[in-house]
Amino acid sequence: MVGQQFVRLLQDHPWFKPSWLAASERSEGRLYQEATSWRLSGAMPPHSAGQRLEPCTPGRGPQLMFSALDAAAADTLEPAFAAAGHVVVSNARTMRMADDVPLLVPEINPEHLALIELQRRSRNWTGAIVTNPNCAVVVLAMALAPLRHFGIKSVIATTLQAVSGAGYPGVPSFDILGNVIPGIGGGEEEKIESEGNKILGSFLDGRIVPHQMVVSAHTTRVPVVDGHTLTASVAFDRIVDPGEVRQALGEWRGRPQELGLPSAPKHPVAVWDEGFRPQPRLDADCGGGMTVSVGRIRRCPVLGTKFVALGHNTVRGAAGAAILNAELMLAEGLL
Amino acid sequence: MVGQQFVRLLQDHPWFKPSWLAASERSEGRLYQEATSWRLSGAMPPHSAGQRLEPCTPGRGPQLMFSALDAAAADTLEPAFAAAGHVVVSNARTMRMADDVPLLVPEINPEHLALIELQRRSRNWTGAIVTNPNCAVVVLAMALAPLRHFGIKSVIATTLQAVSGAGYPGVPSFDILGNVIPGIGGGEEEKIESEGNKILGSFLDGRIVPHQMVVSAHTTRVPVVDGHTLTASVAFDRIVDPGEVRQALGEWRGRPQELGLPSAPKHPVAVWDEGFRPQPRLDADCGGGMTVSVGRIRRCPVLGTKFVALGHNTVRGAAGAAILNAELMLAEGLL
Amino acid sequence: MVGQQFVRLLQDHPWFKPSWLAASERSEGRLYQEATSWRLSGAMPPHSAGQRLEPCTPGRGPQLMFSALDAAAADTLEPAFAAAGHVVVSNARTMRMADDVPLLVPEINPEHLALIELQRRSRNWTGAIVTNPNCAVVVLAMALAPLRHFGIKSVIATTLQAVSGAGYPGVPSFDILGNVIPGIGGGEEEKIESEGNKILGSFLDGRIVPHQMVVSAHTTRVPVVDGHTLTASVAFDRIVDPGEVRQALGEWRGRPQELGLPSAPKHPVAVWDEGFRPQPRLDADCGGGMTVSVGRIRRCPVLGTKFVALGHNTVRGAAGAAILNAELMLAEGLL
Amino acid sequence: MVGQQFVRLLQDHPWFKPSWLAASERSEGRLYQEATSWRLSGAMPPHSAGQRLEPCTPGRGPQLMFSALDAAAADTLEPAFAAAGHVVVSNARTMRMADDVPLLVPEINPEHLALIELQRRSRNWTGAIVTNPNCAVVVLAMALAPLRHFGIKSVIATTLQAVSGAGYPGVPSFDILGNVIPGIGGGEEEKIESEGNKILGSFLDGRIVPHQMVVSAHTTRVPVVDGHTLTASVAFDRIVDPGEVRQALGEWRGRPQELGLPSAPKHPVAVWDEGFRPQPRLDADCGGGMTVSVGRIRRCPVLGTKFVALGHNTVRGAAGAAILNAELMLAEGLL
Repeated sequence: MVGQQFVRLLQDHPWFKPSWLAASERSEGRLYQEATSWRLSGAMPPHSAGQRLEPCTPGRGPQLMFSALDAAAADTLEPAFAAAGHVVVSNARTMRMADDVPLLVPEINPEHLALIELQRRSRNWTGAIVTNPNCAVVVLAMALAPLRHFGIKSVIATTLQAVSGAGYPGVPSFDILGNVIPGIGGGEEEKIESEGNKILGSFLDGRIVPHQMVVSAHTTRVPVVDGHTLTASVAFDRIVDPGEVRQALGEWRGRPQELGLPSAPKHPVAVWDEGFRPQPRLDADCGGGMTVSVGRIRRCPVLGTKFVALGHNTVRGAAGAAILNAELMLAEGLL
Repeated sequence: MVGQQFVRLLQDHPWFKPSWLAASERSEGRLYQEATSWRLSGAMPPHSAGQRLEPCTPGRGPQLMFSALDAAAADTLEPAFAAAGHVVVSNARTMRMADDVPLLVPEINPEHLALIELQRRSRNWTGAIVTNPNCAVVVLAMALAPLRHFGIKSVIATTLQAVSGAGYPGVPSFDILGNVIPGIGGGEEEKIESEGNKILGSFLDGRIVPHQMVVSAHTTRVPVVDGHTLTASVAFDRIVDPGEVRQALGEWRGRPQELGLPSAPKHPVAVWDEGFRPQPRLDADCGGGMTVSVGRIRRCPVLGTKFVALGHNTVRGAAGAAILNAELMLAEGLL
Repeated sequence: MVGQQFVRLLQDHPWFKPSWLAASERSEGRLYQEATSWRLSGAMPPHSAGQRLEPCTPGRGPQLMFSALDAAAADTLEPAFAAAGHVVVSNARTMRMADDVPLLVPEINPEHLALIELQRRSRNWTGAIVTNPNCAVVVLAMALAPLRHFGIKSVIATTLQAVSGAGYPGVPSFDILGNVIPGIGGGEEEKIESEGNKILGSFLDGRIVPHQMVVSAHTTRVPVVDGHTLTASVAFDRIVDPGEVRQALGEWRGRPQELGLPSAPKHPVAVWDEGFRPQPRLDADCGGGMTVSVGRIRRCPVLGTKFVALGHNTVRGAAGAAILNAELMLAEGLL
Repeated sequence: MVGQQFVRLLQDHPWFKPSWLAASERSEGRLYQEATSWRLSGAMPPHSAGQRLEPCTPGRGPQLMFSALDAAAADTLEPAFAAAGHVVVSNARTMRMADDVPLLVPEINPEHLALIELQRRSRNWTGAIVTNPNCAVVVLAMALAPLRHFGIKSVIATTLQAVSGAGYPGVPSFDILGNVIPGIGGGEEEKIESEGNKILGSFLDGRIVPHQMVVSAHTTRVPVVDGHTLTASVAFDRIVDPGEVRQALGEWRGRPQELGLPSAPKHPVAVWDEGFRPQPRLDADCGGGMTVSVGRIRRCPVLGTKFVALGHNTVRGAAGAAILNAELMLAEGLL
């Protein structure tokens, strides 16, 4: 899923070319079109279709590497590539919470890139690893970041996650047709309860000071193809009016918008005033899949504020996030 | 939907016979099988199929009436029937929150039936109206009732509701296929935020003293046929261990179980220890659709306790609830 | 559904502007954005959003009118508009089979436009009515047209139709979730068994001589949002090799491709060699929704040849078809 | 899927007890409830839950064995068990088309059991192998068998198959949500085009003479949980009126009904006169999943007769079929 999104999103990218594709031993040496069953809408990008798959050998290939490796493979391969001088822009969870690795969302925490210097020094790497968040976390983090100045104390979120978030083959259709699965394996709730604190954290004295908020996550899987929806109730330090929340979200811009990065959406967050939006089938593609949608902003009688948020889990939640990370690094002179 | 569930559930009922079926002017005089497009699994019950539909005229027909009227029709018809001496066991929302009308869940508040005396006196009725809760509320109320003694202070719930809850034709398929609709019209969230307090309330000095808890609801519609799922985070007066919650839910029995009412499930609440249960497609029919399932009981870092609950929205949430209400009334000498 | 597709497809059209929007009495006078609940992906086109809805009065508004009226309304309104001088490019079924009305598919039968002269003479109209086929018929007709020279004798087709083909609200979700409905109301099978003969017919001596083939249709509704899929077995006058069928389909071009009409896809028919394509969710948008996809071309042991075909039912099967019809008329000097 | 259906259907069987459960090496020695993730509605049958899984060793365990092995394992294991004296009632495809193996549908060809004698003689077995058809084939064969006396010449069928037919994990949800997959792997169409001829064949001079009909199959996968639907056009030796077809199907009874076998449905085929039935979600469970439903019987302008048929693919199409086979064998003195 994520690998194919990389290929799709990079096919006409103004800055990056997918010049080198690597795969596991089982596939190396074959053409991409032979090794891959293309599952996205539209035809396989012709340039990549005819490329031959290289072995995953550190030191070979270009400086910038996008990694859609699963956690097990990423565990050893990504550090090996970084040690060999590659800049690995990774979607794997392995290194996300490491103290010296940026868990980057360019609109939220571009200053976390400063960790790279620490990373190189402490690990004696010439390359680097930069990560993007879990696909559900990024939706929540993008909806919370513009509200940081209200003082976020606690959050209770329930996710309704799309099947593409489980990769391929992922969720068996017998389990999910006409059904809801209450819970997502692989520590999903723990990630949602911890990654956001690092993402919203401050870079102080050479390290990340996590944001002090408590997050509680309920996860569910629903029969939706693309787009993670979540409901959130939020407590702030002070009473905040829904109108203030609406305004903060709608006006929010970040460094990617400032720099005009190619994958940056005009609006990182879109606010919906219609009563029954956002909806994943209609709105996940908003901003080319890079905009997070927020709607139904209203008072929560328990925590103060509540809303619904939605984002494209394999674009803003994976491949698109990584590409935006790389764009920021190039713009900031780190590539 | 609800009318057909009444016909299905009453076809072999040991105490009640569907001796009289009434319908709107458009259908009266026709046979049930001619006026109805049967949409439940299995064939239309033959006894009802051949019955002729009567006009909705108060004073005609049996004492006990089950009402699946929509709110608009219920508004005038149900009081008229009650005034004419009928006991109306209603699924409509019209009278639920009236001070002198029981919002009955036999396992939770059988003593609320005492309101009928007040109702008859104040309205000068020889009949009565008894109501059951909204189809999402009942799932939450059944999961909370066994926990009352821990002191429920606040609840944040997100519902994932089935399409049968919207009646027929209900939700257009174009809107819900592969999608989630964040929000349910008709004041659904307000009902969830208020009805539970009455249901869990105490009968004191001839009136209901609502339970003092604050409920916040996020509602969503999901592409599921039957079975409302909800996630809930709950704050109690004291710290309660998940094991205590589990035990209280699993051991809970009520008056229907004591009396052995025909529609009473053996376990009003079933506790699931498996990680990914309950699921609506697999578990909504538990206990003949009358058991509410609760799973994933665990600590909530924000409110203290969290879990997922599930119930059949047109059985325990509508027709089955009304029939159990009538069974309790008969057993208690009120019919 | 179809009306919104018109608005979407015309928003950036190089030749036509949606300068005038008309609606039923209930909506006239309101802004489009107030009268309409936008149900397509992406936001409502801003130009149309702010337009005021006009009454459906013949003689008012522009010469060229696109009609997404339902059959009942089209019955009287479309002739009235044509009589008042408008050229009505209609998606309704009312006039499709009339002897003097083109049932136009620009790639297949552009010469049928000659009927307009007859139509004007016989009906004493200054305007005209031109129609496009039923949304399932067009998929079959596009797949058969390139094979006409093999001599099509008979066809057995089974359709698997998307819910958007039933309009809005259309199919209740309770009926179609996790289900198949074997049969589509409104004479769908009769249309499939008759419209194709007119479409593939020849214009001879001022009239259409229908193609002499026998079509048998089985229709079904499936839980798919957009894209009608059909299987077809076809008997030709002679034994035709699957390779010949493949080549004829892949090489087929028509007048719209020759003229470079704005909505004409490069390939009116796309041939898929992969074993499990075309699929509606992945391939309905092929060619902007204007290309019909054909796959699995192989021998049929009963009729000789079999394949699967797929097209976008509200684009090539409705709004896009009508717009291509109008483009052809403009290019041919009929507007 | 099929294994769990066996356990479910045998839990209260009046003749057979699931006294012995065997599994692959990976699971042997574990309790069934530990080795199995139960995926059917309702709880795991308690008797089987506590059983320990045995190794698949020929010569151990009871005489009668139900096999839900996949084709690869069945290939060697089933003959080994038969050689060791077991009667293997198999759902695997491996031996279905072998000349000396019954491809049994008790209502259609109970006389094919006579092949067992031949099988034992030629293979020098003390046990035996009896098979049931592919899950799509059985639906077609049950709908055709009552029409044999009209002289079936050719059939064109399109299947719309449920995901449970692909086993577990089976079809990835990403592939099938809101989609249709045109084609089913594993030679499904070839099975449909050949197995029926053997099933409807006659037992003559110690061997099966296949029925002389030509079948053409189009297969598709649809987002349905249980129940294979198919459309069929059929040519008979003579012109047959839809009323005759209707009557032949409705009146059809077979040896299982005559013998009153426990799993025999009262009506092997149910005829639906309603326009939009049968539907898989509503009607697959008809007759406990053992009745095949046929509806929309009408003239086909190409082949003469057409209809839609539906059956439960893991009950009548797999586990229930095998159990009925064993019941017939017991009643006929073969066990």
